Amino acid sequence: MEVKDYGLSRVSGRVLDGPTNPMVTPLLTDLYQFTMAYAYWKAGKHQERAVFDLYFRKNPFGGEYTIFAGLEECIKFLANFKFTEDEISFVCESLAGSCEDGFCDYLRGLDCSEVELYATPEGSVVFPKVPLLRIEGPVAVVQLLETPLLNLVNYASLVATNAARHRFVAGKSKMLLEFGLRRAQGPDGGIGASKYSYIGGFDATSNVAAGKLFGIPLRGTHSHAFVSSYMSLDEIVEKSLRSSDGSSSCEDFVSLVQTWLNKIQWSNSLRNVFGETNQSELAAFTSYALAFPNNFLALVDTYDVMRSGIPNFCAVALALSDLGYKAVGIRLDSGDLAYLSFEARKFFCTIEKEFGVLGFEKMIITASNDLNEETLDALNKQGHEVDAFGIGTYLVTCFTQAALGCVFKLVEINNQPRIKLSEDVSKVSIPCKKRCYRLYGREGYPLVDIMTGENEPSPKVKQEKICRLSRTLERVASINLS
Amino acid sequence: MEVKDYGLSRVSGRVLDGPTNPMVTPLLTDLYQFTMAYAYWKAGKHQERAVFDLYFRKNPFGGEYTIFAGLEECIKFLANFKFTEDEISFVCESLAGSCEDGFCDYLRGLDCSEVELYATPEGSVVFPKVPLLRIEGPVAVVQLLETPLLNLVNYASLVATNAARHRFVAGKSKMLLEFGLRRAQGPDGGIGASKYSYIGGFDATSNVAAGKLFGIPLRGTHSHAFVSSYMSLDEIVEKSLRSSDGSSSCEDFVSLVQTWLNKIQWSNSLRNVFGETNQSELAAFTSYALAFPNNFLALVDTYDVMRSGIPNFCAVALALSDLGYKAVGIRLDSGDLAYLSFEARKFFCTIEKEFGVLGFEKMIITASNDLNEETLDALNKQGHEVDAFGIGTYLVTCFTQAALGCVFKLVEINNQPRIKLSEDVSKVSIPCKKRCYRLYGREGYPLVDIMTGENEPSPKVKQEKICRLSRTLERVASINLS
Repeated sequence: MEVKDYGLSRVSGRVLDGPTNPMVTPLLTDLYQFTMAYAYWKAGKHQERAVFDLYFRKNPFGGEYTIFAGLEECIKFLANFKFTEDEISFVCESLAGSCEDGFCDYLRGLDCSEVELYATPEGSVVFPKVPLLRIEGPVAVVQLLETPLLNLVNYASLVATNAARHRFVAGKSKMLLEFGLRRAQGPDGGIGASKYSYIGGFDATSNVAAGKLFGIPLRGTHSHAFVSSYMSLDEIVEKSLRSSDGSSSCEDFVSLVQTWLNKIQWSNSLRNVFGETNQSELAAFTSYALAFPNNFLALVDTYDVMRSGIPNFCAVALALSDLGYKAVGIRLDSGDLAYLSFEARKFFCTIEKEFGVLGFEKMIITASNDLNEETLDALNKQGHEVDAFGIGTYLVTCFTQAALGCVFKLVEINNQPRIKLSEDVSKVSIPCKKRCYRLYGREGYPLVDIMTGENEPSPKVKQEKICRLSRTLERVASINLS
Repeated sequence: MEVKDYGLSRVSGRVLDGPTNPMVTPLLTDLYQFTMAYAYWKAGKHQERAVFDLYFRKNPFGGEYTIFAGLEECIKFLANFKFTEDEISFVCESLAGSCEDGFCDYLRGLDCSEVELYATPEGSVVFPKVPLLRIEGPVAVVQLLETPLLNLVNYASLVATNAARHRFVAGKSKMLLEFGLRRAQGPDGGIGASKYSYIGGFDATSNVAAGKLFGIPLRGTHSHAFVSSYMSLDEIVEKSLRSSDGSSSCEDFVSLVQTWLNKIQWSNSLRNVFGETNQSELAAFTSYALAFPNNFLALVDTYDVMRSGIPNFCAVALALSDLGYKAVGIRLDSGDLAYLSFEARKFFCTIEKEFGVLGFEKMIITASNDLNEETLDALNKQGHEVDAFGIGTYLVTCFTQAALGCVFKLVEINNQPRIKLSEDVSKVSIPCKKRCYRLYGREGYPLVDIMTGENEPSPKVKQEKICRLSRTLERVASINLS
């Protein structure tokens, strides 16, 4: 048994960069934070030392854990917290005739140098009611921070948790790609989703801006529009392709592809499996391969996966193979993904056997199309041959639960404990500064988290401890720390 | 009967400002848009004239209409579409060894001067399958626009629709306040929510940044933390308050409040209704009123609404009234809002009668606490006395449906119609450029929308027309335009 004080380290050090999104300014807050700051200031109370906890009350998605994220942006925000003159004028006008000049001067001098931030490490597994952040400082400035900190933590932690849940269902060996930018809730809904999906366990994103900002690996090939933008192979003017090692050049790659398509069609094992394939699609695949011979991955469901997309893909992949290139694989974006992945894999195996192209059966099969935790789980139950999943809408918008309800509650002022009462017992806040411990068993697995008052003795091994179980607030347990 | 060509006007004119969020750059797109652009360029196909439609397939929230929004940001994005050198380098590195220098030069010269945008007016009521935007231009550049345009329209239209639905349920006479910033999906999820809720029919927001950016009216007073930050009336040092007309000054406003609380408590009608009220709350209300005598609105549920919050509020409001100020009202943030609003109204009426303070019964009652369409509807059915609703999480995250599935489909290239087939009939795209008409009855109410091919004759009054009903794609109707 081991006890670790896992949460709430003091965050310190020099931070130069501002928040990723330049719109994250001290004005990104609710008006009532300013009316309160003014009232505190007017009452001479603004410098009183307050302690606020940021926490959530319930794990999202009906689940049993949450991944804490958003801390880096919170730190950048605090470190750069400063009003411009323009912002000060706007705030003072918004306080509608009630604002004394002295308050403008107060805002002018305001920063977070008197604010202390204590935080759980970003990416931690966390649980309800345990503070993710503790913010100590003059009550008026900490009050102003409430909304932006909640905004920066709520969605970040929600998406990271959603991503971790998708990873759990998909399994460690699958490639998970975040494809959600187009359906995200606004531009940095998309950028945030990419960052926090990566923190939650995804492998890559389609979002170029997020790739540039955060160094997340990028993935993407082509869409249906690319396929349908081609009419026929006649459109391809520049037909030559150098071999992978540069030693030779194929002058008419288009003919090579056609030859291969013919060979597949009339091969012993695939005769009568498909007829004439779609020529628009064949032209698009060929053209794409000419542009990306090292990175040929084709979307095969624009017309008919098994009777056109897969044969066309294989013809181009085999032509590339003649020139020493190894095609990457296919993407399926509609239909019965489990069935189609099995059929595609079978087709690849047949090609490998029939034409002796080593490794052809290992072609990567990527699946997309409104995937989520449930569909991944259903695919697992049916069995499938998918290697990589592209997940968009349900991941980035957290469709099954679009918000995490983090709150920001005053727990002390002037060293006095404060509480918010409520008829709804789950809404009653827990007063005072806290410490959080995570207890680990002999095998190194975490067993339970314990929250104590700041000045209570820390839990010790071989000690019996009476605890209230946070889940219910009703039950009291005796934990034997042996 | 009147026929209006309601949709898809050409957008033109000079636009100087860039998108509201500086993160909306040409890099805010999926990697595959760049791989496709490269493949088009490599095939010499990049300048081919393409036509794309942006539309959605199904109204959100199980509803019968959608409000189109996001157009202004799309226009600003297109008007300022230009790559920086830094962005070009990043894109070319991301194309992994496949990128010829000529493509970098191509990107360097790229803008949207050859792109034409046709759009439905922002704020329109729109329906599935009808193009909201039609974008015409060189295929490679229009392809790059797909993701950002979808991102800018999808969430904007979703929130505007959600707001319009809330307005419909709440009724025209109620004040609707958007309070969602803290729970929104990222910083500009919050800012976008404020803008598009306003377009959808909300009256104001709590979001100061949105107020500054878009001129949306701001609302907000104080939170529970403000209440619990006070211990007792002794904390209030500066106790004087000038009368509203400036003619006199009350040297001890705190005593005036206490006197009023005493009068209420021992009045004929309210004797025994409540006992000792919470002094922390009374101090907070008094202090807030001293800061905002013209704008006193108190959150009354920190301890006990009827036994503390309402009496304390009334004492302060009556003290303000003595000095010529008119208190604004209360906010309820928990409990049975219908019941509490009735009880609060009764209390105000009693005060008006007992102490002859004209208009006291008209005090504004604001309600918040996880409100949504269903809870508003339930409140209406129960009956209530609420004047204003503060709506957050469910509005801004569109909790019941977190994404609108707008798509962007190629419908023509080089004047040839293009289609995307699918086994799922709802996913088949409708080829060719379209015109949209809205038919109005004699009373001026809209009856039906009709979509035709670009070159088909427009529907005329007193003409019979055979149409396919878009909802099902199965039924054909004859509409008699009389």
